[in-house]
Amino acid sequence: MSEKESNKGSFTLPGEAGYEKLTLKLAEKWGADAIRDSDGTVLSDKIVSTDYDIYSTICLVRADNTWAKANRDKLQQNYLMSFPVTAKSDKVEIDLLSGFFREQFEVNFNDDPKKWWQVFDRTADEEVPKNQWTFDSVKGTVTINKADKWHKYTVNFLAYRIWEAISMYNHITNNWGDREHQMPVDPIYTETQKFMLDYLQKWLDEHPKTKIVRFTSLFYNFAWFWGDPSIQRFTYADWGSYEMTVSPRAMRLFAEARGYEMTSEDFVNKGQYCSSHNVPSKRLLDWMDFMNEFVVSFGRKCIDLIHAAGKVAYMFYDDHWVGTEPYGERFKNFEFDGLIKCVFNAFEARLCSGVKGVKTKELRLHPYLFPTGLKGEPTFMRGGNPALDAMRFWANIRRGLLRAPVDRIGLGGYLHLVQDFPDFVETIEQITREFRTIKQFHTGSKPYTAPLKAAVLTAWGRLRSWVYVGHFIHGMELYELTESLAGLPIEVSFISFDDILDKGIPDDVHVLLNAGRIGSAWSGGEHWKNEKIIDNITQWVAGGGGFIGIGEPSACQFSSQYFQLSHLMGVDREIGMTLNKVKIDVPVFKDEHFILNGIEGDMDFGRDIDKVYALDKNTTILSRNEESVKIAVNNFGKGKSVYLSGFKFTPENTRLLHRSLFWAAGNPGDYGTWTCSNIRTDCAFYPNTKKLVIINNSEKEEKTKIFGAGGKTIETSLEPYAVKILDL
Amino acid sequence: MSEKESNKGSFTLPGEAGYEKLTLKLAEKWGADAIRDSDGTVLSDKIVSTDYDIYSTICLVRADNTWAKANRDKLQQNYLMSFPVTAKSDKVEIDLLSGFFREQFEVNFNDDPKKWWQVFDRTADEEVPKNQWTFDSVKGTVTINKADKWHKYTVNFLAYRIWEAISMYNHITNNWGDREHQMPVDPIYTETQKFMLDYLQKWLDEHPKTKIVRFTSLFYNFAWFWGDPSIQRFTYADWGSYEMTVSPRAMRLFAEARGYEMTSEDFVNKGQYCSSHNVPSKRLLDWMDFMNEFVVSFGRKCIDLIHAAGKVAYMFYDDHWVGTEPYGERFKNFEFDGLIKCVFNAFEARLCSGVKGVKTKELRLHPYLFPTGLKGEPTFMRGGNPALDAMRFWANIRRGLLRAPVDRIGLGGYLHLVQDFPDFVETIEQITREFRTIKQFHTGSKPYTAPLKAAVLTAWGRLRSWVYVGHFIHGMELYELTESLAGLPIEVSFISFDDILDKGIPDDVHVLLNAGRIGSAWSGGEHWKNEKIIDNITQWVAGGGGFIGIGEPSACQFSSQYFQLSHLMGVDREIGMTLNKVKIDVPVFKDEHFILNGIEGDMDFGRDIDKVYALDKNTTILSRNEESVKIAVNNFGKGKSVYLSGFKFTPENTRLLHRSLFWAAGNPGDYGTWTCSNIRTDCAFYPNTKKLVIINNSEKEEKTKIFGAGGKTIETSLEPYAVKILDL
Repeated sequence: MSEKESNKGSFTLPGEAGYEKLTLKLAEKWGADAIRDSDGTVLSDKIVSTDYDIYSTICLVRADNTWAKANRDKLQQNYLMSFPVTAKSDKVEIDLLSGFFREQFEVNFNDDPKKWWQVFDRTADEEVPKNQWTFDSVKGTVTINKADKWHKYTVNFLAYRIWEAISMYNHITNNWGDREHQMPVDPIYTETQKFMLDYLQKWLDEHPKTKIVRFTSLFYNFAWFWGDPSIQRFTYADWGSYEMTVSPRAMRLFAEARGYEMTSEDFVNKGQYCSSHNVPSKRLLDWMDFMNEFVVSFGRKCIDLIHAAGKVAYMFYDDHWVGTEPYGERFKNFEFDGLIKCVFNAFEARLCSGVKGVKTKELRLHPYLFPTGLKGEPTFMRGGNPALDAMRFWANIRRGLLRAPVDRIGLGGYLHLVQDFPDFVETIEQITREFRTIKQFHTGSKPYTAPLKAAVLTAWGRLRSWVYVGHFIHGMELYELTESLAGLPIEVSFISFDDILDKGIPDDVHVLLNAGRIGSAWSGGEHWKNEKIIDNITQWVAGGGGFIGIGEPSACQFSSQYFQLSHLMGVDREIGMTLNKVKIDVPVFKDEHFILNGIEGDMDFGRDIDKVYALDKNTTILSRNEESVKIAVNNFGKGKSVYLSGFKFTPENTRLLHRSLFWAAGNPGDYGTWTCSNIRTDCAFYPNTKKLVIINNSEKEEKTKIFGAGGKTIETSLEPYAVKILDL
Repeated sequence: MSEKESNKGSFTLPGEAGYEKLTLKLAEKWGADAIRDSDGTVLSDKIVSTDYDIYSTICLVRADNTWAKANRDKLQQNYLMSFPVTAKSDKVEIDLLSGFFREQFEVNFNDDPKKWWQVFDRTADEEVPKNQWTFDSVKGTVTINKADKWHKYTVNFLAYRIWEAISMYNHITNNWGDREHQMPVDPIYTETQKFMLDYLQKWLDEHPKTKIVRFTSLFYNFAWFWGDPSIQRFTYADWGSYEMTVSPRAMRLFAEARGYEMTSEDFVNKGQYCSSHNVPSKRLLDWMDFMNEFVVSFGRKCIDLIHAAGKVAYMFYDDHWVGTEPYGERFKNFEFDGLIKCVFNAFEARLCSGVKGVKTKELRLHPYLFPTGLKGEPTFMRGGNPALDAMRFWANIRRGLLRAPVDRIGLGGYLHLVQDFPDFVETIEQITREFRTIKQFHTGSKPYTAPLKAAVLTAWGRLRSWVYVGHFIHGMELYELTESLAGLPIEVSFISFDDILDKGIPDDVHVLLNAGRIGSAWSGGEHWKNEKIIDNITQWVAGGGGFIGIGEPSACQFSSQYFQLSHLMGVDREIGMTLNKVKIDVPVFKDEHFILNGIEGDMDFGRDIDKVYALDKNTTILSRNEESVKIAVNNFGKGKSVYLSGFKFTPENTRLLHRSLFWAAGNPGDYGTWTCSNIRTDCAFYPNTKKLVIINNSEKEEKTKIFGAGGKTIETSLEPYAVKILDL
């Protein structure tokens, strides 16, 4: 970097008792201003007595195992669907926890199973009448009498969680041996609330040196069901699902407040649970809203105690984040002082940056100081290369930080693990310096952003802005798309179908995007049967709006079309229902088109949607994959649409998306300002300070040309992953 | 060939007036015993006065254009769905024939449009009330008033066909210039019936030399809608669809006979028409049965006249075959003497061979003696290689003929075209000799067939045995599968879901196959929601039956599973609804498995179904494609199942299928007898005559080992495409 670098502040270091010298040495080297503990580590007096801000983690729901053990009826619960069992006679006995991790779950026989459970014949898709099954609390089984032979049966049952998911993960990942299993208590009970507030007050009194109280996080973990370890470690994981908020008491309170009762099947949903990928039902959205109301209300009581103790409260935007909804209307009511998000990518940085109602935003960088990463790959152990991992993650995150600021960064885990990795220590120093430099440019200034606003349409809308659904999905079109969007110099928003029904497409939006597979919450599923949605979008595009559809946009098996907006895109998909319809043969457009200008080589969209065909001679096909349309553009009235058969976060596709947005918006002339010729580089211009930041996202040296305002161009070259700052 | 060859008989030659010398020379060389005319050719007196059987084509529905022109209200009709038009205001005018070939269709305004037509809002999926639209017979339009702006509208309307489809195709393909367009008349009217019978009688009287009267074919063409030539030549083509049988009179007769009325939408079906690929509705099956009853009844009257004239009647199993249903119960009632099928492949040979109730079966070989083939590719013109084409087609057809016999072969088209292709003349001579040799082995003898009966389960069952749906579909799993099956030494049958509901799975069946994409008639669509089907198949497999599922077998978005037989196959497919369900990681089976034994290299299944995962640790995964299961086997009770993620007719896949059938049937020990080691060769043993026929299906020399009964093996090598006969 050519710029004078800031080398102090905005960095949170994980300290570790027993490694005081290392802690203080790295605090100095990395310019830390705060030292934290982690799950599994403590800070010694020697550390907490320094001048660094002390930053302590607390997770109230697993804070006191003694209380939990004494109140096992107040442990957190959830519905599970037993694994399907095929009836081999007219009697089926189902071992409820078979296939699940028996150290995580215990069947709840305290709340009347006949009231709270449901048994289903999943072959016939019918509920089994309650008088046709019995349960055995000693054996942990349900027996179905008068079963239909060869049908598959499942039981929706309530289970207590007897091992809190995150500490279970940390325990197993880090081999904590016979350390006691922490159990999660449920604040839905007034007794638990009293205990938690008392505990918190006592904890605050006992932590006078702590400045920052970090909740890890509040009360309910994202859904994470583990399996029988002899079969599979995990069976279900969803970062956005409310499965783990359920209990009979919460369901009773819901019924009182909302006037109707939820059923087990509302949560189990044929075994699909309340997956973020599926279009949420109105009932599920009601439940989420109800739990959010509760979590904000009780969470605020906790935060009030912290503030009264003269400390500040931060929330970790992972783990027990469910119910907090940082993109919901109530989030500001918490009065949190800070929000921390662990990140691998630009879209996660944008996710954190975009939250309203909280002052300080902090990113927890990967890799964590753990021996292995989230997928079990070696990190701080033989075979790992944490310095390279850190730089690769940072290069992605940095793209997002050019566009939208956060306030702090930091690490987590066991500090002593870095001792064998000196190159990691150097890389983190470099990252902290780069972070502070980029941060300072955002102070009192905004980077140049093109006059283009894109709105991503999903069934979730703003509530699942940036579409973060956990660590387990790859190749999902919209997930890849948001990563590309996160680094573009444009405005991005997220809207839902209900938003369009309520208020239409916002006036300031230029381009609407819809991406994903049929039936998913991202594409929109059954919402596309609503003619008002079609009318609204069609009217808006006819009037000059832009539409970009990716994968199976507007897809729904309904009426005569598969893509319900096929008339806008000029393409539809053959799913086998119209195989004998002969498709119009439209040749690939020969001339260079604006959206592909300057992009070399074949586009890799990952797993493209196949069998897409032109509906009309006037559809312009820019690329085909075998016989299927890969890229098409089309005019409708005054508006324009782009269809892409898939999407993957690559430099080529990011450029294609960037150009498509301007073309669809009808103002391609505005595209050029403050862009780079080299697709592996990005730049941001900060007009107030006239600073131009150029980054190299690749692991090779890159030459690039930057197109400034008024036709000015600047040529430069950058070392691998380098940042360059120019004063203009 | 080592065997003494028959060189005379069983061959039909297309003669051509003006080329009498050539006709007689080739009749001699190819050993013809019959000479035919073709559509567009006539036979001269010199030819018809020879000793050859004279074989004349007749197509009664387009036989006399003078009568047709005088009876335009009795032309054949069909429903068309106008191309969708998006409303840009509250009034939409639709030009009904826009997008269609105006030389093929003329809107029928004679039968009251308000009674027979329907207008649909395809955005809302609702019919537009009849009082909200008007029609203009001069302009050929329908106008919708009070339209919803931006909705897509279509009109189901009746159109007369003013150019008969096959003669239109021949006319355009062979540049017949200003020759008059032949129009098809509809025998549903008693006047037309009288005209046709009179015409036929007169024709018979005028053709004393004709021995064989070949119908090309009876009354109703397979559905073939042509498009505006400036946009696309064809818009819809389905070999099995009854679209072209429709008329107001037929619909009235149907209502009288069956007690309810068909509607235009029963045929138009959202624009999907009555495609063979889609699961037929009960109403459609009723209509087909009704028309079949009519076609057989009136067809028999025609055939009676022929028999009374001392001639024999053959039917061409293409073109106007609709309504005849050779695999239906009534077919024998026609009393046809012969059936002719044009063929490229083994499954078509089996299709013809398997018809009951007709004595003589004849194959019309490709290529036709036309300048271009069915896809417009050069054949008998510069750039064509008709000799190679003929040998390649024959090599495929021959595989089927080893297993099941036909009686004759022949050619069609313009004989003079062969003059420039002497190698074609030689190839056909070779083919005729091979055909006669193979035919003689079937006389009074059956080839060895393993004690294994496979039943292919589709929504059509026996009616669409061998799944022939026209020339336009490639890569369809079941189409490729039937081609493999057609050459295997096993018994093959086709059954429907209704068959299973009525009678269960037949006792003599060992293996049930289900193949295709979700929703299709081949896979079965909504039939898989029927628990009785699931019960029946599950019970049968549990008792020892075998199941082979290919692509999306038993797929239906219903209840908790996607493959409704996932419990049998041990695999299911992720379609995006359970993305956050973590799939069990089952490693690929390391040892050699029976079904893959001796097959080298990767299997190419064409476009595999993706995202298939193991449901259980006990599922045996034999191959994966990226992360998706490609081949899996599973046990259920006493039965076995095989799952393949796709299928393509290749030597490797044919062998895999062959072995899978024996494994699934539970008797792999029976596999070996009379099989070849080399997957590019096949053999058939005829026990009565102790002849062993070995064929080389490849264009290279091949060595192979034949495994006889009792452990005996024979080694041999064959020239490209060669046949070898051994006496054992």
